[in-house]
Amino acid sequence: MNTRSITAAQSNVRQRILDTALDEFYFSGFHAATMRNIAKNAGCSAANVYNHFENKAELLVEILRSASDEQFTATRNALRKAGPAPADRWRAAVVAHSLYTARHQRACLVANTELRYLEEVDRKRVVGSRDAQEHLFVTIAEGGVTSGDFDIPHVHQAVTAVLTMCAGIALWYRADGPLSAQAVAESYGVYALNLVGYRAP
Amino acid sequence: MNTRSITAAQSNVRQRILDTALDEFYFSGFHAATMRNIAKNAGCSAANVYNHFENKAELLVEILRSASDEQFTATRNALRKAGPAPADRWRAAVVAHSLYTARHQRACLVANTELRYLEEVDRKRVVGSRDAQEHLFVTIAEGGVTSGDFDIPHVHQAVTAVLTMCAGIALWYRADGPLSAQAVAESYGVYALNLVGYRAP
Repeated sequence: MNTRSITAAQSNVRQRILDTALDEFYFSGFHAATMRNIAKNAGCSAANVYNHFENKAELLVEILRSASDEQFTATRNALRKAGPAPADRWRAAVVAHSLYTARHQRACLVANTELRYLEEVDRKRVVGSRDAQEHLFVTIAEGGVTSGDFDIPHVHQAVTAVLTMCAGIALWYRADGPLSAQAVAESYGVYALNLVGYRAP
Repeated sequence: MNTRSITAAQSNVRQRILDTALDEFYFSGFHAATMRNIAKNAGCSAANVYNHFENKAELLVEILRSASDEQFTATRNALRKAGPAPADRWRAAVVAHSLYTARHQRACLVANTELRYLEEVDRKRVVGSRDAQEHLFVTIAEGGVTSGDFDIPHVHQAVTAVLTMCAGIALWYRADGPLSAQAVAESYGVYALNLVGYRAP
């Protein structure tokens, strides 16, 4: 193998370990998950796992951080295509955020349930990216309140309500159920617009 | 001790075991929780814990079922005092449900995060009570749609969105924070009324 294919092979192993670890966290929870099981299910040695990740917490941080970053990017891309009106931006952001949640259900569910088991220093590494997402939603909602399009008593609280409502999709959504991820995301866009007291002109 | 005080003492021990188990599930998660730790922190022997509860799952079922039953009762009591209009009933139910969540944060959080680790048969014992709560909200929302007060495309989905939004309170609410549980619950009542497209006359 030349250098490039060695690097590619290593990157494949790394991704396989991450995928396996996500399943392990999803089915067993962070506390019960073991590096040995993750290695076994990824088809490599424990030593190989430790080559890539220092410990279980490092794996969880990496999974949650990259999911949060991807979700953030998806939302920003949607905003780039949305019109300038606060209602359009709000709906676009909620739809993109919800769509990511439905399509990456396991990572989002693990983020909601297992984050609290991380040590403070590790949690901070994940929370930064989540805070950035929240800030984006707060900025849009504040714009809507300023323009008079939205009517809510507490902007931050309303944003939290909407983001937890969207996070809830990971709890019940089934890809083989009657509604597509896109249809669910569109409905949540409507709920979120209603929630902030928006009245279509 | 006479029979009555023996029974009272046993009931105290039982409640102490349940309280301790809730903390153990909250801080460590269901998988990592141990009957030995629960016994130690409850100040009794493991044998004593097993006298009251067959295993860890039995403890979790009991905690989640009684929390869900209490929340249901609180909601029904609030509905008894609410007027007949769907909007009044919807808001009263959401406020009572949210208030319980803020005041019993640990049990509600454990219900959201640890329920999925129970075996199917145990999960069903808890889910029955949650389904009854959901049914109550669906009935009110259907009433609002029928009367023309609410405007939502999918009643069940909107109810799920509202209930997961309310469940999210357990994730962030702090009793020592700036907002009282009652204030949070009232705001969520407003969000939930907005969400279903209610327009105050």
